[in-house]
Amino acid sequence: MTDTLERPATEEGSAPHRADAWLSAFEEALTAGDVERAAGMFAAQSFWRDLVSFTWNLTTVEDPDGVRDLLGATLERTAPRAFATSEPATEDGGVVTAWFTFETAVGRGTGLLRLKEEDGADKAWTLLTTLDELTGHEEPRRTRRPAGAEHGSSKERTTWKERRQAEAESLGSTTQPYVLVVGGGQGGIAMGSRLRQMGVPALVVDKHPRPGDQWRGRYKSLCLHDPVWYDHLPYLKFPDNWPVFAPKDKIGDWLESYVNVMEVPYWSSTEAKSATWNEEAGHWVVEVEKEGQPLTLRPTQLVFATGMSGKPRMPEIEGADVFRGDLHHSSRHPGPDAYRGKRAVVIGSNNSAFDICGALWENDVDVTMVQRSSTHIVKSDSLMEYGLGDLYSERALDAGVTTEKADLIFASLPYRILHEFQIPAYEKMAEVDHDFYDRLEKAGFWLDWGDDGSGLFMKYLRRGSGYYIDVGAADLVANGDVKLAHGQVVRLTEDAVVLDDGTELPADLVVLATGYSSMNGWVADLIDQETADRLGKVWGLGSDTTKDPGPWEGEQRNMWKPTQVPNLWMHGGNLHQSRHYSLYLALQLAARFHGIDTPVYRLQEVHHTS
Amino acid sequence: MTDTLERPATEEGSAPHRADAWLSAFEEALTAGDVERAAGMFAAQSFWRDLVSFTWNLTTVEDPDGVRDLLGATLERTAPRAFATSEPATEDGGVVTAWFTFETAVGRGTGLLRLKEEDGADKAWTLLTTLDELTGHEEPRRTRRPAGAEHGSSKERTTWKERRQAEAESLGSTTQPYVLVVGGGQGGIAMGSRLRQMGVPALVVDKHPRPGDQWRGRYKSLCLHDPVWYDHLPYLKFPDNWPVFAPKDKIGDWLESYVNVMEVPYWSSTEAKSATWNEEAGHWVVEVEKEGQPLTLRPTQLVFATGMSGKPRMPEIEGADVFRGDLHHSSRHPGPDAYRGKRAVVIGSNNSAFDICGALWENDVDVTMVQRSSTHIVKSDSLMEYGLGDLYSERALDAGVTTEKADLIFASLPYRILHEFQIPAYEKMAEVDHDFYDRLEKAGFWLDWGDDGSGLFMKYLRRGSGYYIDVGAADLVANGDVKLAHGQVVRLTEDAVVLDDGTELPADLVVLATGYSSMNGWVADLIDQETADRLGKVWGLGSDTTKDPGPWEGEQRNMWKPTQVPNLWMHGGNLHQSRHYSLYLALQLAARFHGIDTPVYRLQEVHHTS
Repeated sequence: MTDTLERPATEEGSAPHRADAWLSAFEEALTAGDVERAAGMFAAQSFWRDLVSFTWNLTTVEDPDGVRDLLGATLERTAPRAFATSEPATEDGGVVTAWFTFETAVGRGTGLLRLKEEDGADKAWTLLTTLDELTGHEEPRRTRRPAGAEHGSSKERTTWKERRQAEAESLGSTTQPYVLVVGGGQGGIAMGSRLRQMGVPALVVDKHPRPGDQWRGRYKSLCLHDPVWYDHLPYLKFPDNWPVFAPKDKIGDWLESYVNVMEVPYWSSTEAKSATWNEEAGHWVVEVEKEGQPLTLRPTQLVFATGMSGKPRMPEIEGADVFRGDLHHSSRHPGPDAYRGKRAVVIGSNNSAFDICGALWENDVDVTMVQRSSTHIVKSDSLMEYGLGDLYSERALDAGVTTEKADLIFASLPYRILHEFQIPAYEKMAEVDHDFYDRLEKAGFWLDWGDDGSGLFMKYLRRGSGYYIDVGAADLVANGDVKLAHGQVVRLTEDAVVLDDGTELPADLVVLATGYSSMNGWVADLIDQETADRLGKVWGLGSDTTKDPGPWEGEQRNMWKPTQVPNLWMHGGNLHQSRHYSLYLALQLAARFHGIDTPVYRLQEVHHTS
Repeated sequence: MTDTLERPATEEGSAPHRADAWLSAFEEALTAGDVERAAGMFAAQSFWRDLVSFTWNLTTVEDPDGVRDLLGATLERTAPRAFATSEPATEDGGVVTAWFTFETAVGRGTGLLRLKEEDGADKAWTLLTTLDELTGHEEPRRTRRPAGAEHGSSKERTTWKERRQAEAESLGSTTQPYVLVVGGGQGGIAMGSRLRQMGVPALVVDKHPRPGDQWRGRYKSLCLHDPVWYDHLPYLKFPDNWPVFAPKDKIGDWLESYVNVMEVPYWSSTEAKSATWNEEAGHWVVEVEKEGQPLTLRPTQLVFATGMSGKPRMPEIEGADVFRGDLHHSSRHPGPDAYRGKRAVVIGSNNSAFDICGALWENDVDVTMVQRSSTHIVKSDSLMEYGLGDLYSERALDAGVTTEKADLIFASLPYRILHEFQIPAYEKMAEVDHDFYDRLEKAGFWLDWGDDGSGLFMKYLRRGSGYYIDVGAADLVANGDVKLAHGQVVRLTEDAVVLDDGTELPADLVVLATGYSSMNGWVADLIDQETADRLGKVWGLGSDTTKDPGPWEGEQRNMWKPTQVPNLWMHGGNLHQSRHYSLYLALQLAARFHGIDTPVYRLQEVHHTS
């Protein structure tokens, strides 16, 4: 407890004093091994989210009971200590918020604490604890950065270029990656970059010819739907002239440069064909085709970063074989150029459907959108202002909320009650943009705001679908430029889409903007169905809302944390998640690589297989 | 003067109060057009350095007389106002230091002021004023960044990729760059990046196949001699895991990525063959060969960024034609690989000579260094600690000295007295490393510390040569692993170098590490000798020290500022200078592009032609 002695004196009753007092008392209880006392310091309704630092898991426990359970299982080996606020705590509306750092037996962490007064005492309402680095395996940054030039003279000197070449030549032949990351979009790239910095031998493989082709190959009008402040990758931020919503080709070029600059171990034109676990040898056997040549890799850890949305969902449609026009999934849609003057039917009414309909209309295609179920729409500007602005914007940066802080604030809001924080923002958007929504409803569009009115981000976390961030195409539907039909597709004819009410929509092109299935479909393809089932459904919170069946999971299913399949990991999400959660997955992998004991508290259970 | 009313009250006599009072009084005098009063606010010995904001020049005036002259010529049209400290001023050793911002008739600027008490009043000792941006032509950064996605729907929409392609196709055929930058190393790249952000049509041409080849093509052991904190390019900083001294190939890759990410208008494999000024048309006619095809460019402004060191100096050596080994300038040296077991003689004893000798020795070459004149050597670690550490280091960053601040602090130290600040640092290095220097002297090496003991950075500014930043090879000379000879080369034989004392040094390889001549040699090559002479010598301060003849110039000759040849500009230097001074040159070019009046105060005179 020597740390507490060094803390500057703070005024009794002030936020800094209250935060320091709570942290001191908490550390005292932990040091004494007094789980009961520590649990008693949490409010009756409270949440402790731990990212790897205590639990070797991403997990949230609730209320004093949950805290007692967590500490009972993890306290002794974690040996947490040196809790200290990293800046003066603040108070707002009765809640004291404190940033702090701490250490464990194996690493250093950052935390965010919110206190509320309950029964006359300060109790933790939310606590976030996160692992930042492993002691003794710190990343080579700032004062630890490599020298580059090796001073002195040595006849054994090799240059950086020679070392890079030697690594490239040996990897996959005389040396094996400890971690193989399948999929080299932003998720795989962020992971490869983290692992490189942590000194973990890794390899990212991707089937496309160049990094960034995952974006370049999409429909030509595509721009990011999330703004730049939300999209940084680890280590190297976009420059401050980067577009708010980056065009797909520019993001593609950035990813390619990033792979180069960050020395991400990356094989392009490499397709993973199959993977099996060799129990005896304790590694995976992964057959890949690298530039057409078969090759066997033997990684200890296998990370899927093949797209959090999972495999394109291709509904079987009667008559698909007789249809004479073009029929493809939205993920394969090349853009409007070839369809000028023709008739298109787009099945679906979420992000991709709107983007594609808009681009087709702009290129003089006669286009009809088929809405099968209701959609949540928010205007991009409103989402920026009311949804993200406090955390990810120039305004946030001016207020001292760096990307790193924003990520932790975001992570500190418990999933269980996150919708409560979200609902008011969407109520505000509904109010500000009510003209817009009126026009859409008058045009017959089916709108929703999520099962509980909690809007877009909860839909994203729960089901990863069901919404459109409007950048203009909604108006085309509202004013009839893009025609709207409703219903289910029952069959295709030679030249039309037939809906369940008998409507025939003439079509030269049919785009299936029908979404994606659970990411464990990739596992079934690469490994086998039994392993996919053992892994279970990926993504979602167990919120018991549409497409996110219960029971409550507390965290995103199977993402960035240990699964029921040992040595198999799922990674990905949007750029924000690829950035932030890659840290925790990489730390879990690095700990295993370095032989650190990593007992998992509350390993994910499987309740659904798809 | 409304700004001053809003300033928070400061305590009488405190540094903030003194700085605010001086700035208020200065602004009052300027607003009243009272040049005499303003000049009287400067100390008897004082320096005002202006970078573009008042003078459309880089210039330093001295003492009240100089201030009177500068203001007499520039005050009316500059119309400076809104002087305001941007953070509380500080006091140290009797000097008050204040950061401030101000505005002029055409732009916004930043300044750095140092006050000293003289005759009972606060007088300016040093004043730096710099232009940051042109009002109405601000760069698209932060809140002004481009949207990327264009919201709404339009049948005229073009994508980012289409616009990039259209620009690439039209540039040099249907459209002409306003600025042509010849040379695409760090200098040309930084300039191209600035001009892109300022909206000035520009083109950088370089003869190498890829950006970064300027570095990749050098000897293989080469690493930067300056540390990472000193080396950032504009807009996009190196990540914090970047090596302290980046290996040449890594810098090459960074430059290539940078060109891509920053959308620098850049033609590789393009050699400028000739340039002539077309007076009638008001543009240059530049013949280039782009991938082997001749092409004529017609830029209004021509920037040389061909290497501040200028053309390789190739002494004519008798017998060069009979020598049977390899003979090349250090800039063409491929590295040691082909010379294992052979005998090399390296003529010269500065940076390149040492680097090359070290790498040859490491590869089992029998190597002799020929020292022709004394050399200034400092150990890299000592230079970092005592020379750069206060401004460019993790320590500096921790103390709030960002790269941007460090650049301005550096720029604020008047060249006239800069050596006085430098001498103590080198005295310290001599003391700390005296064992090292003793050993070198015992080995017969001729050491110096610059004509006035002011060390490396002054040598760099004055003559750009005469030193070695030791990363290990000095020890090879001290211990005799690299042999040392002294004297001038009088001739080559079939297999040896002959010195003026008759010494014969057997050689299979002779490397001429003989330095570079003035950069206007490039102008003679591309344009003609008459223009090169009209431009005059480039680089140096006029310090009347070795290789930097007087008279005193006050600034670096002809660098980054108007020259006697209209529409001709010289750019370059190390990474620090390429970063910082590219801003001021780009602003001068942007102002001319936008048709802003740019009367130059104290245009550079020519005192030497080479």
